[in-house]
Amino acid sequence: MDKIGKYNFIAGPFHCDMSQRLFMGYLVNDMLNAADFHSDEHGYGVTYMNSVHKAWVISRLAVEMIEMPPMYTKFHIETWVESAMRYFTNRNFSVVGNDGKVYGYGRFVWALIDTDTRQPADINAIMGDYMSQWLEKEKPCPIARSSRVKISEDAQLVRTLDTTYTDVDVNGHINSVKYIDHVLDLWNLEWYKNHTIRRVEVAYVSEGHQGDRLAMYLEQTGELEYSVRIMKVAPDTEEAVEACRCLVAFNNC
Amino acid sequence: MDKIGKYNFIAGPFHCDMSQRLFMGYLVNDMLNAADFHSDEHGYGVTYMNSVHKAWVISRLAVEMIEMPPMYTKFHIETWVESAMRYFTNRNFSVVGNDGKVYGYGRFVWALIDTDTRQPADINAIMGDYMSQWLEKEKPCPIARSSRVKISEDAQLVRTLDTTYTDVDVNGHINSVKYIDHVLDLWNLEWYKNHTIRRVEVAYVSEGHQGDRLAMYLEQTGELEYSVRIMKVAPDTEEAVEACRCLVAFNNC
Repeated sequence: MDKIGKYNFIAGPFHCDMSQRLFMGYLVNDMLNAADFHSDEHGYGVTYMNSVHKAWVISRLAVEMIEMPPMYTKFHIETWVESAMRYFTNRNFSVVGNDGKVYGYGRFVWALIDTDTRQPADINAIMGDYMSQWLEKEKPCPIARSSRVKISEDAQLVRTLDTTYTDVDVNGHINSVKYIDHVLDLWNLEWYKNHTIRRVEVAYVSEGHQGDRLAMYLEQTGELEYSVRIMKVAPDTEEAVEACRCLVAFNNC
Repeated sequence: MDKIGKYNFIAGPFHCDMSQRLFMGYLVNDMLNAADFHSDEHGYGVTYMNSVHKAWVISRLAVEMIEMPPMYTKFHIETWVESAMRYFTNRNFSVVGNDGKVYGYGRFVWALIDTDTRQPADINAIMGDYMSQWLEKEKPCPIARSSRVKISEDAQLVRTLDTTYTDVDVNGHINSVKYIDHVLDLWNLEWYKNHTIRRVEVAYVSEGHQGDRLAMYLEQTGELEYSVRIMKVAPDTEEAVEACRCLVAFNNC
């Protein structure tokens, strides 16, 4: 066991987009799997938390890429917990080719919740001082922290879609990564022929469920920078509730 | 190099559905990646074929599962070419846990095409007798071959959807696996709480492109067995062209 976990991945051709580089959604999935493997090795993964009626819920994430790994790249994801507070842990990631080339970084924030009450759970009360021995405070993660993502009431409704079976994760909620896929699908292939994704942020607000209709509101917030608010409407209701807010920043290529 | 390639995978929690077992789409993606790694090791993978203006195009696939690997299962996919004819190769798969437990099998058929003319290419003319040394004719793959998938004109339109950026593969076509995801999304979570997927077949007819609208026609063809025809309509046209036909067979659980 190590403060910094290191897990191997490959940019398989069927996980790549038409630029022949890894899809952002697959990369974030790999990061989430790496985080889960690492926390599981340390005894505070999904399996243990389930046994005490708790669950890690992702609260925010930011991923910033120098470039996306090209098809067939063998890379590893390093992951470490930078800090743990009462209700949140900050876990960082680096994405590094097996040849040492750095592709990008991630900063994710998790909350612990009680699965019976759905309320935040006190990490210290459950784990005492256990986590502090695994904190890695020195390793740099040179990207900005994830934010709450600013978006105004001027954002325009650009797409609605119904969620389905493959949108749902092991907990019965809309998969965190599927929101990213749905947001990136707001731009077409022509756009992606001329732009690469520099940074993605998601601030999760409330959990969606299969059958929810998602309404996506888009606002340009800077040069090549956009915010998207995703509202969810449960079946048989009219009430729209905010599910998450996303930021996407592109580079010209 | 070996006639039978063997590649390691894990049913990461973020690749699993709400029954906490691997999504069929991820498994087929793993199979496609395994096939590509294996053919690449033998010198007839995507990279070589690109260099001579050829491409492997999947023609049909069948996957039949005893059960889906549960979350965290470490498994390997074995893959071997059973036979190679003038225009087609038959490649088989087994999905086996690292503890030896057999989860299921696959039978895929690939065609070789000329990427300049989009016409079938003669495998023997390009590779001579090279492939024959790698054929593995003895290893059993105890599931029925993939079929053309029967579906009648009585099939009912059940869903239309627009294809987007994340539907498109490295060749600029609608990803073979995304058709499977879209078909499986025709059933809701309640269905999947009571049924597992026994068998999936796809017969690919013509390639889709981003922006195509897909129209899905469903017909029940047996007890717990369904066929789906997917028609595609390109933007700015009215003409519907068949993209593929799928079969899905379920078990009660």
